[in-house]
Amino acid sequence: MSTIVNRRDLDFLLYEALGIDELLANPRYSDYDRESITAIFDLSQTLAEEQFQPFAGYLDQNEPQYVDGKVQMIPEVKEALNAYREAGLFATGYDADLGGMQLPWVVHQSISAIFTTANTSVSNYVFLTQGAANLLNACGSQELKDKYLPKMVSGDWFGTMCLSEPHAGSSLADIRSKATPQADGSYKITGTKMWISGGDHEITDNIVHMVLAKVPDSPAGVKGISLFLVPKNRVDDNGDIIGSNNIALAGLNHKMGHKGTTNCLLNFGESGDTIGHLVGNVNEGLANMFHMMNEARIAVGMGATVIGLGGYLYSLDYARNRPQGRHLGNKDPESPMVMISEHADVKRMLMTQKAFVEGAQALLMYSAILLDRQQLADSEDERVKANLLLELLTPICKSWPSEFCLEANKLAIQVLGGYGYTVEYPVERYYRDNRLNHIHEGTHAIHGLDILGRKVRIANGAALHALRDEIMETITDCAQDASLQAHCQQLGDALKTVQLTLDAVSKCPDPSLALANATLFLDAMGHVVIAWMWLQQAKAAQLGLANGEGHDAAFYQGKLAACRFFYRYELPKAIEKFDLVASLDDTCFNLSAEQFVGI
Amino acid sequence: MSTIVNRRDLDFLLYEALGIDELLANPRYSDYDRESITAIFDLSQTLAEEQFQPFAGYLDQNEPQYVDGKVQMIPEVKEALNAYREAGLFATGYDADLGGMQLPWVVHQSISAIFTTANTSVSNYVFLTQGAANLLNACGSQELKDKYLPKMVSGDWFGTMCLSEPHAGSSLADIRSKATPQADGSYKITGTKMWISGGDHEITDNIVHMVLAKVPDSPAGVKGISLFLVPKNRVDDNGDIIGSNNIALAGLNHKMGHKGTTNCLLNFGESGDTIGHLVGNVNEGLANMFHMMNEARIAVGMGATVIGLGGYLYSLDYARNRPQGRHLGNKDPESPMVMISEHADVKRMLMTQKAFVEGAQALLMYSAILLDRQQLADSEDERVKANLLLELLTPICKSWPSEFCLEANKLAIQVLGGYGYTVEYPVERYYRDNRLNHIHEGTHAIHGLDILGRKVRIANGAALHALRDEIMETITDCAQDASLQAHCQQLGDALKTVQLTLDAVSKCPDPSLALANATLFLDAMGHVVIAWMWLQQAKAAQLGLANGEGHDAAFYQGKLAACRFFYRYELPKAIEKFDLVASLDDTCFNLSAEQFVGI
Repeated sequence: MSTIVNRRDLDFLLYEALGIDELLANPRYSDYDRESITAIFDLSQTLAEEQFQPFAGYLDQNEPQYVDGKVQMIPEVKEALNAYREAGLFATGYDADLGGMQLPWVVHQSISAIFTTANTSVSNYVFLTQGAANLLNACGSQELKDKYLPKMVSGDWFGTMCLSEPHAGSSLADIRSKATPQADGSYKITGTKMWISGGDHEITDNIVHMVLAKVPDSPAGVKGISLFLVPKNRVDDNGDIIGSNNIALAGLNHKMGHKGTTNCLLNFGESGDTIGHLVGNVNEGLANMFHMMNEARIAVGMGATVIGLGGYLYSLDYARNRPQGRHLGNKDPESPMVMISEHADVKRMLMTQKAFVEGAQALLMYSAILLDRQQLADSEDERVKANLLLELLTPICKSWPSEFCLEANKLAIQVLGGYGYTVEYPVERYYRDNRLNHIHEGTHAIHGLDILGRKVRIANGAALHALRDEIMETITDCAQDASLQAHCQQLGDALKTVQLTLDAVSKCPDPSLALANATLFLDAMGHVVIAWMWLQQAKAAQLGLANGEGHDAAFYQGKLAACRFFYRYELPKAIEKFDLVASLDDTCFNLSAEQFVGI
Repeated sequence: MSTIVNRRDLDFLLYEALGIDELLANPRYSDYDRESITAIFDLSQTLAEEQFQPFAGYLDQNEPQYVDGKVQMIPEVKEALNAYREAGLFATGYDADLGGMQLPWVVHQSISAIFTTANTSVSNYVFLTQGAANLLNACGSQELKDKYLPKMVSGDWFGTMCLSEPHAGSSLADIRSKATPQADGSYKITGTKMWISGGDHEITDNIVHMVLAKVPDSPAGVKGISLFLVPKNRVDDNGDIIGSNNIALAGLNHKMGHKGTTNCLLNFGESGDTIGHLVGNVNEGLANMFHMMNEARIAVGMGATVIGLGGYLYSLDYARNRPQGRHLGNKDPESPMVMISEHADVKRMLMTQKAFVEGAQALLMYSAILLDRQQLADSEDERVKANLLLELLTPICKSWPSEFCLEANKLAIQVLGGYGYTVEYPVERYYRDNRLNHIHEGTHAIHGLDILGRKVRIANGAALHALRDEIMETITDCAQDASLQAHCQQLGDALKTVQLTLDAVSKCPDPSLALANATLFLDAMGHVVIAWMWLQQAKAAQLGLANGEGHDAAFYQGKLAACRFFYRYELPKAIEKFDLVASLDDTCFNLSAEQFVGI
């Protein structure tokens, strides 16, 4: 079996559970049908298995180094990305007018995910470039787009996002980088940017940085931040490189995971002028950046999910092939050992991984379809609804897999035992890689504040209403199926608990206390949404089971079991968290810094 | 503040919460009082901070390498262990008749723990040596003890435990290493041992391996395993080294954490004869090994706990010194940033760490005191009771910190944000180091089977009765304190739930199904025991608060808050797990291997 993608499940989610056919019927995607999409998946899987997966562990153990102001890395990275480019796969993320393949976003995302599982560190360069290109495309002037976008779309030049600074990570209001206007309309950029993934390397001839900085006399805080395009190398009007733009690589951060992706400290304008170009209007930089945030955050969540998937598939394959011990009650030491997949606790650990990973994958694909629907909407109402759902689901998409697919990775190690703890097997690397996802693109806490402090209330609660309507529709659809009725009841009750929780929070006179347990709310809402995803999958599995035979029947039975597992073992945890949020518990909130250890 | 030990809390646990005075009153410990113990802690903390902590990160990044059949490692390891030996600290773990300091076990364990937090990889060598020495002392012949023990007690020679083989990790019944009797009473040892921590190095002149192997015609399975002392270098009757014993280092396992501790694949008797000496009787090897298991497993749990402590203290110190963002509601971007310890979610993450780490530390110290009591018991009844409590608590001592102090380490990273994900800060190393503790000295699943399948039933449930009596005594003691009554009620109810759960499990006709969710039972029982530990701490804090002022008052208030936190946020999770165990849920148990992914 492949250990980077479960093609049966991918098809199940696309065509049976989430209904991608509806998208494919749209003229925008008239070039594609199930057959042609399968062919792209085939190509992607082969390339990922042959050119990305084999050196993922080697890259992790031989991370890029800072040598004389430059990045040195193993040549396999560039070779893999060249193969990716030559296969035309950079084009999956763009529309035809940019020279892209104009695929449904959900298909593009699923393709990218195969490479992320195979070699997260390498696929990051692609993802970062596409993010920067989409931001430029959405907000840049035609002149800038003409000059930079084609090279980014083709993958000849890579891109980055430069937000954080050493003293300002989560608190972007406090960035200090400056942009000083020049007579020709460009800006001189000065300052230091921290945590810049892909911030420097020798893979491509140029790197296009999208940089937040402040122009003189701009307002304090986030209202005074502007966005600039700042290339590593300057480019003339023909698009040719004409020399360095004086961005100095001040150092590489060496991290627990994602080791193959350079993470840089960059100094702008220290050793000579660094020239940047305004993207969008002055002081609208953060707002422009956030245009692309839903996509970026959903991509982070998808990354967390499929790193979880990698661990799940690898540990499943291992468990089915590793003999160890005997069934409980078999006291005959001369009887043959059984495969560890026969042991109850190994099954529990595999099932937990399956429930988390396949639940998250459904959510991320559903959300990608919402991005597609937003674009295809026939009416403004439809577009607004897709948008509201996305706004509400984005913090969950980003955060829930970061927490629970990391937990899946922890269990994957445990299935392998001592072997899982060694670098000879990929599961410990997955665990290290996945630990990043709580932190970047907004920390877990920030998404908690976002959902409980803002998203549940936007448009007078319309986003929450839209989500509730969608979930109720699934409940109604399933209520006729006797085997799903208990789940329907439980999910309906959970929705009521959400409302009671929000009512209680809204009555709290102290807005800080109201949000004190926002992270718990975020996790709990995630559980409700994932339970909904499992109900949808169970419904589709019941349908499939009516016709499924052999392996297919086993596949569908596994889906139904995972749904039962999630409702039995996981959803009750959400109810407890809602209870804590609703109680406005102040145990932690009231603690003073010296009470922790008495000094 | 120290980031490796909280001396105020150590004293609180020893003298206020757990009552070590009672031990010190015993003539066995007449050399010690609070003052002299404080002096040993002072010495240990200084040595650990000056000689162990500074290179822990460097060692992690420069792990031992296999070069021409030998281990190469940075010299700091040997230097630190020399300093430890010269300070006389190897002696903390032994009785006076062996040349040791004859300290209460709980004090010895607390001293060792300081070094574990400072530099886990280095302290492992000490811990392994003491385990091997204690095993030899308990089970070896006088001749063997005379020859090997003094050098191990002094720390001149190190020791290991050699149980696992490449094909047999958890399943020791299936080991294949052979011991062939020789005319002189010794044995030729052949076979391959895997995962041998400290299995080879050049730190000491000799390494004393305690090896499980099978003599010819021994019964199949665990009943045919014998224990042998097998030195790296042969020793003459004067105790002098006379040449190699032909144990070949076949390779080093490179691991996610504990990188400074060599982990070896060893071949015995391949390049020449490897001579071993029987320890205890033939075929009683596993039973003998298990004599020392309670101690070893409690030590593993203590290790997991104080790795958690290291993350907690470091992230607390960081949070109180890192400015970032402003209070919610403060919209003025020109106001100064606040320390992140002011943010509600950071407080929650710090509190979670505190509740887990200080709860586990109380349990591990209580269990160490039980080891002491077992030895000091005035009556057989007392001894039996201490032993029963230890038998029942050992799987929890080993497993609960492995799970929940790992979670604490995850949160420590989160408090530091992006910085926490880099190797410049120790918190990601703690997270990697701690991940081992689920796996070695019996996996999490094995301890689940141990507690639910065996320990709750031993001596007709007497261990469980003894635990219940102890907990009820604390509840009775606290019931007069109005501020603790709700906790008493909740803990009493939890005890009832334990009994109902066991009643349900005992009625299950299928013993395999009965144990299918044993791991959940293990985690839940741990929560009950830790809740008990927090009630004891709360009681002591109330007492202290009556007299405490200033910093002391803050310390006690923090303890009370952590107790409230554990009862409010954590204990309810145990009730849910008991419910799942009692329901004999078979969702995972009935799953077939092909249902996971349909192939």
